[in-house]
Amino acid sequence: MQGTEEPTSQAAAYTPTDRTVPTRSAERAAYDKELVHAILDEAYVCHLGFVRDGAPVVLPTLFGRVGETLYVHGSTGSRPLRMTGQADPGLPVCLTVTHVDALILARSAFHHSINYRSVVVHGTAYDVTDPEEKRTALDALVEHVVAGRSRDSRPANKKELAATAVIRLDLNEVSAKLRTGGVNDEPEDLALAHWAGVVPLRKGYDAPISDPDLAPGTEVPAYLADL
Amino acid sequence: MQGTEEPTSQAAAYTPTDRTVPTRSAERAAYDKELVHAILDEAYVCHLGFVRDGAPVVLPTLFGRVGETLYVHGSTGSRPLRMTGQADPGLPVCLTVTHVDALILARSAFHHSINYRSVVVHGTAYDVTDPEEKRTALDALVEHVVAGRSRDSRPANKKELAATAVIRLDLNEVSAKLRTGGVNDEPEDLALAHWAGVVPLRKGYDAPISDPDLAPGTEVPAYLADL
Repeated sequence: MQGTEEPTSQAAAYTPTDRTVPTRSAERAAYDKELVHAILDEAYVCHLGFVRDGAPVVLPTLFGRVGETLYVHGSTGSRPLRMTGQADPGLPVCLTVTHVDALILARSAFHHSINYRSVVVHGTAYDVTDPEEKRTALDALVEHVVAGRSRDSRPANKKELAATAVIRLDLNEVSAKLRTGGVNDEPEDLALAHWAGVVPLRKGYDAPISDPDLAPGTEVPAYLADL
Repeated sequence: MQGTEEPTSQAAAYTPTDRTVPTRSAERAAYDKELVHAILDEAYVCHLGFVRDGAPVVLPTLFGRVGETLYVHGSTGSRPLRMTGQADPGLPVCLTVTHVDALILARSAFHHSINYRSVVVHGTAYDVTDPEEKRTALDALVEHVVAGRSRDSRPANKKELAATAVIRLDLNEVSAKLRTGGVNDEPEDLALAHWAGVVPLRKGYDAPISDPDLAPGTEVPAYLADL
């Protein structure tokens, strides 16, 4: 789950815009690129929003990152991919990623919350037509699931490439939003006899389950131990 | 994380519509209400999509469920809440929930995937103005985080209720989509020497961390053991 960092000396933060400054809890917003990349890279799916017939549509989908560009792929028949290919000059989208880190149980119902880290990307999605960029994007999508995996699988063949649409979304108008820390109850509620505290969510992996038809002698690869 | 079931004999499934029948992998779509409820109830956040100035916006947010109605709350100043209060007859939204259950590592890059369970709800969000419904919704939001918690916290007072906006979204145009099972490689790839299989994601909780200012003698509640 690692994007490929470009070895350039770009600005370290995204420039806030009207759309990326929240109307509330602005102190939770962040624009640091490294932080944004880390939140994106840790997520298996994003939620891609677009407008169809005037109404919003939000679909979960896999994605990959190469430097300051996100890639989403899908069947050439899938709606957002097809719509991007037909849109000129591209499809307005909003791509959002969220991690829930802990439950915050306050003494007051009002102050119940969660600790989370999210990234919201506003922008325009463009169809990727260059074969080289398409291959790079597909590698990034596989690397996003498990780092090291793209070199340990059969690359897409011509037929598969033709059946796959890829869209790109550049990271320009981007913000992270985070809640960390503990319970924020009102001072006058501290003496109440309700338990309050933080319940951290634990994330991990169970042991890999090998496909029953593995070629003889194929072992679980070492890079899965790094997950 | 339990919605309150209404003891009525409603239809057991949502009626598919043009928007809830996927253009591809239609065999993964499901409309069973119990399944949809279970996927919703297991999620801490949903991704709420709406249209602002013609562009899509997707924000993560807490939610609750009471029977066939979802509730989202927020500050009266937050954008989707404020927009819903100003919209007549309501704000078109799309609310999506996704669980990632396993990584699917195929021999071919093309067949890499994840096992997931998602629910997509299309509809119109309405501002909740009835004080009783608002209280019911806020209880459901707290119960959604931890079942049993709404009775073990101080209910919202007048000032908090006034500062909180609640919107409702009825479950009418709803679909679930799931991928389960193992690797689906092409027959001619089975002999390749790449490992293939399923990596299940493990989810759980770490031990609750008590707030440092708990009233003396306040113990970790039993319902947290049921998480």
